[in-house]
Amino acid sequence: MSKFKGVVPPVVTPLNDDLTVDYPSYTRVLEHLIGAGCHGVFVLGSTSEVVFYDDKTRREIIEHSAKVVNGRVPLIVGTIDPTTDRVISHAKIAKAAGADAVVVTAPFYTVTSQSEILDHFRYIRDAVDVPLIAYDIPVCVNVKLQRQTTVTLAKEGTIIGLKDSSGDDGNFRYALLDLAAHKDIFLMTGSEIVVDTALLMGAHGVVPGIANVDPHGYVRLWDAAQRGDWALAKKEQERLCRLFEIVWVAQGRVSGGASGIGAFKTAMKQLGIIDTAFMPRPRAPLNEAETAKIDDILRATGLLG
Amino acid sequence: MSKFKGVVPPVVTPLNDDLTVDYPSYTRVLEHLIGAGCHGVFVLGSTSEVVFYDDKTRREIIEHSAKVVNGRVPLIVGTIDPTTDRVISHAKIAKAAGADAVVVTAPFYTVTSQSEILDHFRYIRDAVDVPLIAYDIPVCVNVKLQRQTTVTLAKEGTIIGLKDSSGDDGNFRYALLDLAAHKDIFLMTGSEIVVDTALLMGAHGVVPGIANVDPHGYVRLWDAAQRGDWALAKKEQERLCRLFEIVWVAQGRVSGGASGIGAFKTAMKQLGIIDTAFMPRPRAPLNEAETAKIDDILRATGLLG
Amino acid sequence: MSKFKGVVPPVVTPLNDDLTVDYPSYTRVLEHLIGAGCHGVFVLGSTSEVVFYDDKTRREIIEHSAKVVNGRVPLIVGTIDPTTDRVISHAKIAKAAGADAVVVTAPFYTVTSQSEILDHFRYIRDAVDVPLIAYDIPVCVNVKLQRQTTVTLAKEGTIIGLKDSSGDDGNFRYALLDLAAHKDIFLMTGSEIVVDTALLMGAHGVVPGIANVDPHGYVRLWDAAQRGDWALAKKEQERLCRLFEIVWVAQGRVSGGASGIGAFKTAMKQLGIIDTAFMPRPRAPLNEAETAKIDDILRATGLLG
Amino acid sequence: MSKFKGVVPPVVTPLNDDLTVDYPSYTRVLEHLIGAGCHGVFVLGSTSEVVFYDDKTRREIIEHSAKVVNGRVPLIVGTIDPTTDRVISHAKIAKAAGADAVVVTAPFYTVTSQSEILDHFRYIRDAVDVPLIAYDIPVCVNVKLQRQTTVTLAKEGTIIGLKDSSGDDGNFRYALLDLAAHKDIFLMTGSEIVVDTALLMGAHGVVPGIANVDPHGYVRLWDAAQRGDWALAKKEQERLCRLFEIVWVAQGRVSGGASGIGAFKTAMKQLGIIDTAFMPRPRAPLNEAETAKIDDILRATGLLG
Repeated sequence: MSKFKGVVPPVVTPLNDDLTVDYPSYTRVLEHLIGAGCHGVFVLGSTSEVVFYDDKTRREIIEHSAKVVNGRVPLIVGTIDPTTDRVISHAKIAKAAGADAVVVTAPFYTVTSQSEILDHFRYIRDAVDVPLIAYDIPVCVNVKLQRQTTVTLAKEGTIIGLKDSSGDDGNFRYALLDLAAHKDIFLMTGSEIVVDTALLMGAHGVVPGIANVDPHGYVRLWDAAQRGDWALAKKEQERLCRLFEIVWVAQGRVSGGASGIGAFKTAMKQLGIIDTAFMPRPRAPLNEAETAKIDDILRATGLLG
Repeated sequence: MSKFKGVVPPVVTPLNDDLTVDYPSYTRVLEHLIGAGCHGVFVLGSTSEVVFYDDKTRREIIEHSAKVVNGRVPLIVGTIDPTTDRVISHAKIAKAAGADAVVVTAPFYTVTSQSEILDHFRYIRDAVDVPLIAYDIPVCVNVKLQRQTTVTLAKEGTIIGLKDSSGDDGNFRYALLDLAAHKDIFLMTGSEIVVDTALLMGAHGVVPGIANVDPHGYVRLWDAAQRGDWALAKKEQERLCRLFEIVWVAQGRVSGGASGIGAFKTAMKQLGIIDTAFMPRPRAPLNEAETAKIDDILRATGLLG
Repeated sequence: MSKFKGVVPPVVTPLNDDLTVDYPSYTRVLEHLIGAGCHGVFVLGSTSEVVFYDDKTRREIIEHSAKVVNGRVPLIVGTIDPTTDRVISHAKIAKAAGADAVVVTAPFYTVTSQSEILDHFRYIRDAVDVPLIAYDIPVCVNVKLQRQTTVTLAKEGTIIGLKDSSGDDGNFRYALLDLAAHKDIFLMTGSEIVVDTALLMGAHGVVPGIANVDPHGYVRLWDAAQRGDWALAKKEQERLCRLFEIVWVAQGRVSGGASGIGAFKTAMKQLGIIDTAFMPRPRAPLNEAETAKIDDILRATGLLG
Repeated sequence: MSKFKGVVPPVVTPLNDDLTVDYPSYTRVLEHLIGAGCHGVFVLGSTSEVVFYDDKTRREIIEHSAKVVNGRVPLIVGTIDPTTDRVISHAKIAKAAGADAVVVTAPFYTVTSQSEILDHFRYIRDAVDVPLIAYDIPVCVNVKLQRQTTVTLAKEGTIIGLKDSSGDDGNFRYALLDLAAHKDIFLMTGSEIVVDTALLMGAHGVVPGIANVDPHGYVRLWDAAQRGDWALAKKEQERLCRLFEIVWVAQGRVSGGASGIGAFKTAMKQLGIIDTAFMPRPRAPLNEAETAKIDDILRATGLLG
């Protein structure tokens, strides 16, 4: 059984008002997640706003995370950049700085294909001795990791797992079926809102961005599912679905990226987990009216008194 | 009248067989283009495979280009990376290394919006004192620069021009109409195959990737259009359309990116302009059968004896 | 509680070799479904190839179905055509011919909007006194029924239910949550492969095309879910997922429509349920090699001896 | 040389306030177009709102049009419906009622493929002895007629021409090049805003919806292009581009379909060509504020005193 399993939140990156990383808040986020019983942490993912950070900042974030986590749970690190050799460079740094596994997307900006994606992962695996997790996120990279691509990479040992943020639950299910005999392969959903059902399908882990706000909820959901208590899992999921509606509060006024991550950060600030809700440029922060609506949702879902 | 006008090819980046930049070939490409009468060069664009190169290589390419070009024509430099501050970093390097203007896309990987795109360009303009050219390339960044976005940025002085690789000629025409009174604004098409018609609409420049293969053809097309000889411009364009069919020779076997840039590089190698046709990983090179088909097209369009 | 619930297959339309409807086979299909314990039948849906049939044929199909079904289960009828008044005409015929409810998509061919979709359903409801079920099928009509659209129509009484074939399980879940207090509203998934999870979410019915081939499987799945035996529901679903792979056997050679419906019809022919596997023009039938592969899958999933 | 050439407007369908066809206004539209020098008329196209009309209304519209046109110009008739045999039925009626050619799209609603599209056109051509024009309109049918599909159908004699409303000018140009030797083939653009450039490419005809409002403008554009006076053609096109901005006046408030056709009808009403600006359900008419903005544009482009 893979050591990568369970609730593995993609960790938000708190910022100071000068848009440098706020490491004291960052430490609190990690402690908040680990303290809630999360089974791993995923830093430098999309929720972490990884593509906004340069090499130096990324390295500092990994080193800081490794120091705080200190082996208590696996540390998974995103190495997101457009092309193979740039990803290899990130992966080498991540490994040196303490990553237990790295998360790799398909190439982006460039117009790619499934056979090129296969080569991309194989080149990276050959170049760096660190476990690879494939990241299927078409909304960001504009290409889907097809079932056959994922399954081939897993069966041949190029990847040890998948984070599926594609929203294509049927495809995810077929990957689970195709790889059912491969007990060392680890398939995680990136969804926040169909986690109970992904677990019923047999998903080995969940990577919900909003677990930054409510890790206890996802750990309860996970535990219920492990016990086969699907009614309770569903009930917890439905509360978390109501919480997840914070991501649409600023929809239309700011970009989809800012609306979602901005909501996570704003909620965490309102809950006292981090100090500010800033995002890197050009993302605009949420405003007071939006913050008030988020407070309402936090209260309605039992997170704010 | 802007000094940026005419035929401004996006320069391919020739590689050695170890995938380092082949600077002797690179020099020959630049001389080939300038010698043919091109009015500028655009390095580190999509055709240059910019997103495959790290900071150090990008800086070397700009410095090398500046040295070779030596002020004979404007040197335009792409600063393509996902987010604002990373682009600013590239733009500062480009300026220091001799760029006359830099080319900036919308943010990518991140889910953006038109208002965020406006801010993106404004932050970059505020941070670096170098002229900005907006690059509309939805196939790579997954978002369109809407007419109003481009026109706003141009009228307020944030950008001095546009490279439109969106294929949306109607939208391009409206931008031309909206900005007709702004004589200092420079609107270029990125098309290879509707250049005559873009010039009839009033386009100020053209950035055809395949001008790497046949710059003389595009200079003749440009000159004919300047004289109002549209029949000749059309005739030249039609020959170039036949030449452009090289980009589909490897279609299906390799990715769209590799099929296109691979065809340019292969044709340039067959014509003796560069030494090899390698592309950065994970792009696979064209094979012998495909090279033979490209030779056929080069012969049919008068480029190979 | 709505009388519309449970397993409601979209009924395939068997054809003679002259492409007229093969009513003896049609009768056998209906008896096969009702005999297996299906809770309703949906005729003239996408699986029924409704848009291939003219008014006269549609009327005959409804009348034939009503006669065979004879009130044993609800008879739901698709009234699929591009625009409001044409749908009204179909709905009047359907009602007169014995439909218990009609299924209506968003307008198509025309470029529509959510507010226009609201009006579309309201005009139809005003014009015909028959219960309406909204059909969310963006792959066919090129527009999504947004959560707010569905919920508004349901709360105001314009529609009594939804068939969701959008593949957007998260959106479906929010519709379930938003309408949880409305016990008379009936939300069905059109999926074949995430039926167990849709039922865990609280779906009231399932409309799987491949239930034409194996209705007993879906009835077992439904029954297991009703008892809360999610492990058994999952196991049955996984077998049905393997069966569903028949839809990709002819992928690439024929259109997506023909590959899917052709597979259903071919499997039903091989199982002796219908006499031929023809589809209306321009759909090409599956060939012998494809039929042999379908036989293999039927054997592997226990349907063929 | 084909008799189908020149300016061939897609004729709007004027309605009475009870949404029946207003034939006196319809007659005036046809006389307006023919009187302005248009070279043909295309009835029952997308601009005509064809998919909103039942068989009986379609037949009446064709018969009425044939009577009014009376052989003065070719009468081209759309036979738009989702599938092959339904199109054949429309085509037979169109032929009987006096159509000189019929316009056929790819199948829609159904998920189709290029090979199925080839069969679709061939079946129709075999079934009805009337010239076929292919209609490439992906925004409505959700599939593109690929270059090879159009060229194959034209070379084998299945179609006599193409109406290209895809906005893909590069693809249109390649079709023109591929069919240059086939003097009997007729390739028309459906654009309103790049007509001059389509004519420079060699297009044989233009089908601009807004020619209903200003046919004289498009006839002047056509005449200028025939004389090779591209500067004048461009100037006329630019005025027509400003006129075309009426289609965005109601954008956002009503659907894209209603915003466009509603603007045409409203402008025609304001110019006294038709009596009302109603559209079939569920399209909502433009309001007074929008009508005032359309008046402003009509004045600015010289159509309203």
